[in-house]
Amino acid sequence: MKIKVINPNTTTSMTEKIGAVARSVASSETQIIVCNPEFGPAAIEGHYDEALSVVGVLDEIRRGEAEGMDGYVIACFGDPGLLAARELAKGPVLGIAEAAMHAASFVSTGFSIVTTLGRTRVIAQHLVDNYGMTKFCHKVRAIDLPVLNLETTDARTAILQECRLALEEDCCGAIVLGCGGMADLPTQLSQELGIPVIDGVSAAVKFVEALVGLGLGTSKVGDLAYPTSKSYLGMFR
Amino acid sequence: MKIKVINPNTTTSMTEKIGAVARSVASSETQIIVCNPEFGPAAIEGHYDEALSVVGVLDEIRRGEAEGMDGYVIACFGDPGLLAARELAKGPVLGIAEAAMHAASFVSTGFSIVTTLGRTRVIAQHLVDNYGMTKFCHKVRAIDLPVLNLETTDARTAILQECRLALEEDCCGAIVLGCGGMADLPTQLSQELGIPVIDGVSAAVKFVEALVGLGLGTSKVGDLAYPTSKSYLGMFR
Amino acid sequence: MKIKVINPNTTTSMTEKIGAVARSVASSETQIIVCNPEFGPAAIEGHYDEALSVVGVLDEIRRGEAEGMDGYVIACFGDPGLLAARELAKGPVLGIAEAAMHAASFVSTGFSIVTTLGRTRVIAQHLVDNYGMTKFCHKVRAIDLPVLNLETTDARTAILQECRLALEEDCCGAIVLGCGGMADLPTQLSQELGIPVIDGVSAAVKFVEALVGLGLGTSKVGDLAYPTSKSYLGMFR
Amino acid sequence: MKIKVINPNTTTSMTEKIGAVARSVASSETQIIVCNPEFGPAAIEGHYDEALSVVGVLDEIRRGEAEGMDGYVIACFGDPGLLAARELAKGPVLGIAEAAMHAASFVSTGFSIVTTLGRTRVIAQHLVDNYGMTKFCHKVRAIDLPVLNLETTDARTAILQECRLALEEDCCGAIVLGCGGMADLPTQLSQELGIPVIDGVSAAVKFVEALVGLGLGTSKVGDLAYPTSKSYLGMFR
Amino acid sequence: MKIKVINPNTTTSMTEKIGAVARSVASSETQIIVCNPEFGPAAIEGHYDEALSVVGVLDEIRRGEAEGMDGYVIACFGDPGLLAARELAKGPVLGIAEAAMHAASFVSTGFSIVTTLGRTRVIAQHLVDNYGMTKFCHKVRAIDLPVLNLETTDARTAILQECRLALEEDCCGAIVLGCGGMADLPTQLSQELGIPVIDGVSAAVKFVEALVGLGLGTSKVGDLAYPTSKSYLGMFR
Amino acid sequence: MKIKVINPNTTTSMTEKIGAVARSVASSETQIIVCNPEFGPAAIEGHYDEALSVVGVLDEIRRGEAEGMDGYVIACFGDPGLLAARELAKGPVLGIAEAAMHAASFVSTGFSIVTTLGRTRVIAQHLVDNYGMTKFCHKVRAIDLPVLNLETTDARTAILQECRLALEEDCCGAIVLGCGGMADLPTQLSQELGIPVIDGVSAAVKFVEALVGLGLGTSKVGDLAYPTSKSYLGMFR
Repeated sequence: MKIKVINPNTTTSMTEKIGAVARSVASSETQIIVCNPEFGPAAIEGHYDEALSVVGVLDEIRRGEAEGMDGYVIACFGDPGLLAARELAKGPVLGIAEAAMHAASFVSTGFSIVTTLGRTRVIAQHLVDNYGMTKFCHKVRAIDLPVLNLETTDARTAILQECRLALEEDCCGAIVLGCGGMADLPTQLSQELGIPVIDGVSAAVKFVEALVGLGLGTSKVGDLAYPTSKSYLGMFR
Repeated sequence: MKIKVINPNTTTSMTEKIGAVARSVASSETQIIVCNPEFGPAAIEGHYDEALSVVGVLDEIRRGEAEGMDGYVIACFGDPGLLAARELAKGPVLGIAEAAMHAASFVSTGFSIVTTLGRTRVIAQHLVDNYGMTKFCHKVRAIDLPVLNLETTDARTAILQECRLALEEDCCGAIVLGCGGMADLPTQLSQELGIPVIDGVSAAVKFVEALVGLGLGTSKVGDLAYPTSKSYLGMFR
Repeated sequence: MKIKVINPNTTTSMTEKIGAVARSVASSETQIIVCNPEFGPAAIEGHYDEALSVVGVLDEIRRGEAEGMDGYVIACFGDPGLLAARELAKGPVLGIAEAAMHAASFVSTGFSIVTTLGRTRVIAQHLVDNYGMTKFCHKVRAIDLPVLNLETTDARTAILQECRLALEEDCCGAIVLGCGGMADLPTQLSQELGIPVIDGVSAAVKFVEALVGLGLGTSKVGDLAYPTSKSYLGMFR
Repeated sequence: MKIKVINPNTTTSMTEKIGAVARSVASSETQIIVCNPEFGPAAIEGHYDEALSVVGVLDEIRRGEAEGMDGYVIACFGDPGLLAARELAKGPVLGIAEAAMHAASFVSTGFSIVTTLGRTRVIAQHLVDNYGMTKFCHKVRAIDLPVLNLETTDARTAILQECRLALEEDCCGAIVLGCGGMADLPTQLSQELGIPVIDGVSAAVKFVEALVGLGLGTSKVGDLAYPTSKSYLGMFR
Repeated sequence: MKIKVINPNTTTSMTEKIGAVARSVASSETQIIVCNPEFGPAAIEGHYDEALSVVGVLDEIRRGEAEGMDGYVIACFGDPGLLAARELAKGPVLGIAEAAMHAASFVSTGFSIVTTLGRTRVIAQHLVDNYGMTKFCHKVRAIDLPVLNLETTDARTAILQECRLALEEDCCGAIVLGCGGMADLPTQLSQELGIPVIDGVSAAVKFVEALVGLGLGTSKVGDLAYPTSKSYLGMFR
Repeated sequence: MKIKVINPNTTTSMTEKIGAVARSVASSETQIIVCNPEFGPAAIEGHYDEALSVVGVLDEIRRGEAEGMDGYVIACFGDPGLLAARELAKGPVLGIAEAAMHAASFVSTGFSIVTTLGRTRVIAQHLVDNYGMTKFCHKVRAIDLPVLNLETTDARTAILQECRLALEEDCCGAIVLGCGGMADLPTQLSQELGIPVIDGVSAAVKFVEALVGLGLGTSKVGDLAYPTSKSYLGMFR
């Protein structure tokens, strides 16, 4: 089984981290192909960055279809271009926010999300509502540090602290980490906090494996059918 | 990995069918243990049957913990006793309605459910709402035949016909089969209908495998912590 | 009119308290029959306890039908087995959470719930949502003391204090007491707090009297029709 | 106990019918005082009629407080002026739409409403949503005949026919009659249809009796406190 | 274009302020006619005041139709009588709460409301829900001062302070001022706070201009059709 | 006042039609600048087309800021890139779906949408939910003809027919036209149908005029603040 994991931003160190996490959870029969677009934002910290990252994501999906991919993971917590990607793909496509929230609803009756910048909380909240997770998600929290600062000790300390606040105040049984760049943190955080801490990259890889294992691909009836053919001007021709 | 698949009713032929389906999708490393309670209803066709089936389900979970199970599937579309079972279990516990609906939301933007008896539609609708699937589930349909008649040709014809109606009228991109006894039907139905047809037994097995693979168990903080110890009178002592 | 008030746990001192409260509000023509199952948990403090208590509740309903009961009250704030009980009963069946919330919505535009253990808040919140009370219920609060400690002075003090917090912080006009064991408290609390404080046991008794007085029983069309006959193995035969 | 039942329109024949129904269900200790405003619309068939009827309703509540009423029923299915009336009243005030919907949710898991004019369906739907009954109310239906034509045979036939359609198409277990002028119909309709048919006038009387019996009045903390004193110009001085 | 701006209370100083604000934003071709009823409450601070103010509002709409008005603004934040007014009017009718919330949803993804008396928060919250603004409105706040005290320095200070709290705590991008008497404040508050502060009077005037400019009037099909003719007794004859 | 109206697809005949409609409703002081991206899809008929059109839309917004635009209209019924565009813009940005739905909620209590291809209904439904219009929008209908066929007589006939069906079946008081290419139809359809028929292009132009007239721009606090500066690789550098 070949699963393509797409980091929608262009920061290759983050792509590598995401790839390492994806491989660490994948089954032995699964081949993880990790990539990021050659163009687009170095980090995704708002609606605008996200909108521009979509072109690169779709480009990777289109190539992936030619390469015979069985499924895809979009590894940014805003799940950029998810439905558009599903139009292009025969197999399943999962976003990491989607996968993490669904996983959290399987092991708890309520979770909180801890994300990076405060301004991205709205994006996470919109996804919560779109995925039907409104009653499961008790709060979206932010540590208010930029995505590319996640490697620092300060960031890890801030995340741990915010998780502790969530446990005390939010009546939650699980934590969802709200950024692909936090993919390496759940094991340690789970141990320190004593509750499930869920990273979407690994969750999405396992759920895509599950769907492919079930023989389930994206529905090609209705709005997720392949795009109707039409003329495209300029750079997308 | 050991996954216990519990058929909550006492009809062993259905247990065998469910077991066969579970094994057919499980990974080679996964050991499927299938069972049904020794007591309880022969079929679950309403709130009452479901409530009584829960005792047997919980009994199987309790034993499963002693047997070192890594996860559980509750293989009746009403997901009887799901949250109570989660209190008892260290690993993940999934209901087949829950698993099927989540899978459907991964491969389509809207699905319809086709179940057996008309009177169980309300139960399915309550689960739809509880799982946050209200906007994804376009309609709950019933063929109005008892659970134990599913083996007949008439039942299969009725299911196919109801799926066709769903496709025409409900603007849906996937079908969820609303009964554990339909677990053997999705492949053929998918081919005939040209859309994903999802059985919860196989979906739940794969999602439990995924969660165990992620190292995720049921949260033991909050309402899903192990039951507080207390005296129990009579048969549950 | 004969109304059976079922305490779903097996603590007879609580059963007696519930009975006393039920009799104190019942009309002179109403005969209150109070009981608890002979088997099951001494207190209900989670999904698991609740699931196991249901068997005893249904047993009492079944007997009640033979005894010519006109209606029933399920006197635990989780309303265990409510819909299953309705399948068995000709007359109306009310849960005390249901009755208390509806009463609160009749005399205020928003209420808060004060319950015992923190872990049961989720159960109360699920009922709030299922009964359509999401916008009316401003907060579910817990004093974090076990059900069987309710008789102590500490518990009463903690309840009063939590009600005061609700009044200050929740913009609520009424308090719903979230445990059958608090049934004797509303009069005193109402006087101290100056707002309606509602106990579900008394509310449910009066609403069952009202429904019986209207000639209304449980609908026997659809999902609340009598259970379909089928074979039952083992202890429920 | 003295309960004032207010018909918000000025058609005295309807007031009499409503009074007769109210008395027929009231307890022997309850005194029913029925009335209608001396001014306002002969029938309430829209937002405008309803808005103007409110002044008369509030006038009757104000007088009722002086007359020592223990509770009130607003006997028009739009529940005109309900929250304003509650500000004026010490005891409970119930609308007949409110009472009927809550009663229906006690004896079924889903109901349909059958009302008079098509244009009033929106008013009923708004109440459904405001009372948290969105998931319980499966459909609002209209026979498209004016309120004052309810006495005719045609109207009764149309109502019966619409109820039959509801049973066939709406997956409902109970019918709520959507007009005070239908208060005399439920017994006969229930027998013909075999399901609970609920009239709000009688339901509201019994629920007010229940609340008064519980010692519950309207909360005087928050938005339902007595109106703040202020100068009123002109006719309401 | 002639737009009638109706202050539903009888305090002429507030009417004048509202008129000045309306004129200051109106296009040069728009004629603003400002008025208040000759009867009714001096301020609207609850459900009761609001219900009584409706008669005067509708009276002004009725006259306005004779005077050839193109549209209307109801300038009290409870939007009293909005749907009833729409039945009477050929052109569009907007409430200031409605206009302000919609405007806020155009320039932010979330807003908070700052209103006067605490008891009116419930009224604002009901409108939020009725207008579909539940997810956009993060909090309804009150300064707990009466409407007629808005002219004082204390009130302005309290409003500014409450807006600051909203910015810090509510994750909001805009403020909606919850009272017609605050119509003169947004410019200064916007500058001090650095976010859009929205007054409903000016927003409603501009949106009515927009609708009239589009040739859109109130739908005369369905529940907003002109009232059906019927006899009216007493003062509304 | 300068308003840029952006047709997100690259079909210049549609851009011209949209421009003509925009100019026909704009105030005399308003200058309408109409444009379409130089690259991207000829029509937008799904999630994929929409996602790719966003880059061109954002490019036009960026240029617009340099050109001193006061506000923007995104003239495709999927409102592609709306929130991303708001991040870039100082003034208000409106989508035509958003504007049309809000306008419809001002002049009716319920509307239906008539769009082109069946597969785009899901997109419209998602917007309905995101804008809080779930209760206002009674149905999303499609004539199942491609966007670029709208000029044909067949398309106009199909639209009229679908509107008639909406009127008969959906209990709606207004129609929203679900495609920028239908911008020239509302006047004629309104006359034929006797209800408000609303085109989003003209509605959006008037609402942007209104917002600019109020001095309201997009909030620059929170998620709609200008994008954080970061490196961009490749074509978006």
